[in-house]
Amino acid sequence: MKKLINLPQDAVREELEGIAAAHSDRVRVHADPSYIVRVDAPVRGKVAIVSGGGSGHEPMHGGFVGRGMLDAACPGEVFSSPTPDQMLAATQAVNGGSGVLYLVKNYTGDVMNFEMAAELARDEGVAVEMVVIDDDVGVRDSLHTAGRRGVGATVLAEKICGAAAELGRSLPEVAALCRTVNASARSMGVALTSGTVPMVGKPTFALGDDEIEIGVGIHGEPGRERAKAASAHDIVGVLAGAVLDDLPLSRGDRVLAFVNGMGATPLMELYVVYNELHKLLTDRAIGIARNLVGSYMTSLDMAGCSITLLRLDEELTALWDAPVLTTGLRWGA
Amino acid sequence: MKKLINLPQDAVREELEGIAAAHSDRVRVHADPSYIVRVDAPVRGKVAIVSGGGSGHEPMHGGFVGRGMLDAACPGEVFSSPTPDQMLAATQAVNGGSGVLYLVKNYTGDVMNFEMAAELARDEGVAVEMVVIDDDVGVRDSLHTAGRRGVGATVLAEKICGAAAELGRSLPEVAALCRTVNASARSMGVALTSGTVPMVGKPTFALGDDEIEIGVGIHGEPGRERAKAASAHDIVGVLAGAVLDDLPLSRGDRVLAFVNGMGATPLMELYVVYNELHKLLTDRAIGIARNLVGSYMTSLDMAGCSITLLRLDEELTALWDAPVLTTGLRWGA
Repeated sequence: MKKLINLPQDAVREELEGIAAAHSDRVRVHADPSYIVRVDAPVRGKVAIVSGGGSGHEPMHGGFVGRGMLDAACPGEVFSSPTPDQMLAATQAVNGGSGVLYLVKNYTGDVMNFEMAAELARDEGVAVEMVVIDDDVGVRDSLHTAGRRGVGATVLAEKICGAAAELGRSLPEVAALCRTVNASARSMGVALTSGTVPMVGKPTFALGDDEIEIGVGIHGEPGRERAKAASAHDIVGVLAGAVLDDLPLSRGDRVLAFVNGMGATPLMELYVVYNELHKLLTDRAIGIARNLVGSYMTSLDMAGCSITLLRLDEELTALWDAPVLTTGLRWGA
Repeated sequence: MKKLINLPQDAVREELEGIAAAHSDRVRVHADPSYIVRVDAPVRGKVAIVSGGGSGHEPMHGGFVGRGMLDAACPGEVFSSPTPDQMLAATQAVNGGSGVLYLVKNYTGDVMNFEMAAELARDEGVAVEMVVIDDDVGVRDSLHTAGRRGVGATVLAEKICGAAAELGRSLPEVAALCRTVNASARSMGVALTSGTVPMVGKPTFALGDDEIEIGVGIHGEPGRERAKAASAHDIVGVLAGAVLDDLPLSRGDRVLAFVNGMGATPLMELYVVYNELHKLLTDRAIGIARNLVGSYMTSLDMAGCSITLLRLDEELTALWDAPVLTTGLRWGA
């Protein structure tokens, strides 16, 4: 294993120190228990949104803390759930009196710990709602997960719900919106290579020089099929096909098309993938009203990508376009 | 070779089609000869800035086309110089009557072709100045280069000169500023793995499982030393040490610290590197007034990073902070 780290057991802590050093104008990083909050937290009268999960998926979630997106993120160790005490401390740090939404990817440990934190927070009188994202059509009941896994739709839900919270919507409204985003989005990914967990020191799974894993999870969980390496055209056909099988879209529908890199895939290839996706959707008279191309939800140094489609309406589009000021996503005033 | 492409010889063309499909609100992509221009080009009365170089370094340069940065970028084939006819066509597309700056990385082919394009453009009555960036202290007189190579400072020069041009500065002023940025910045990189050029199909160079290439070029050119894999702490010591040997900084100086990923290195590791750099500079009482952490000048799927330091004064800081609206860098109004 060659990585730009020191001791594997220190990688997450040192990463967080780096984020603190680089972005102290934007976020505060708390240690023991560790969480990242926007520098102006708590924002009085605003619903706060807290997310979190194992490290190794950066910029998700810590890179999405800031005005217009998350109020706090709780980083676990690499590919390990954060603990309820991290979540509770983050909740206390961001609670502005209008309640807190936990936006959680569907992995058993994350869900269990966020549920426990929600109980603890409610005991303290904080109104907490929790929405679980499960957009990955790759497989059902995977390693670490009952039901479908939560992947790319998480980024979109964090952005859209963050905008709604910033506009002053209530906790039930923001939670309902989050469920709408989850219900309107599907994803599937592919791995060309495995990532390597620092503490393990070798690739999570083995792929031959001519093999790819279709439907892979963001922790290297097995997908639908170990297939022969194929063209971008064919891979996009499989990924987008699976997404469209599960998310009925009609001619004239408009979507947000998200091509996400897994960490070790250069932008050049993501644009080739986007080009194929654009042609496929255009052929079906599905309009791409918005897009996002880049590495936003990664899996350490895995090579590969995922495709997420989100059906848009006017409200979701306006919330997507609203200003956001994070290190990972940034636009608008 | 596993990549998310179709035929290797089509990768750059299809990437450009993807960029055109994704960002038609921001840029126009011209084919044959290929170049990318801001959607509102030419901007009357503004100095235009044109850059370019081989593909495979994305988001550089095409991702930096937009308000506050580049007016046009000319992409060559992977790791191959763009041609004078691309540069001339881009120049004609962006010339707003106040002259054009060619901002060129120091590679023999790029320099030669931009010089040829400058002559052709001047024959047509366009005022052209050219500034060559050569900030890489790794080696002198490398493969493809006489003198030092141009690397990370290019991103900073494009941003800072783009801001100056947007403010209405004259061509000689913007060119002088570009020379100041180049004179005030130094870089060095390290490779943990080689990238693979699609048309070649195998890694550009071979590195053992316990080897790294110190001072590597962005095309995989040899660096100073093939060394044993080392900790982030030690690697940063070597890279920043070489930069500081060449760029005299004193206690109390303020810099922009840029930690750049080479394409296959996840953000997690870049923040560990940034953390080490922050500690090293703090120990020397050099202040980091601004920073940039991410993969902005890549080398296909090479794993590794580079460090660039730019000595800042008030003017450079203000120009860095000025609004920029590109797909690769975006902030401000």
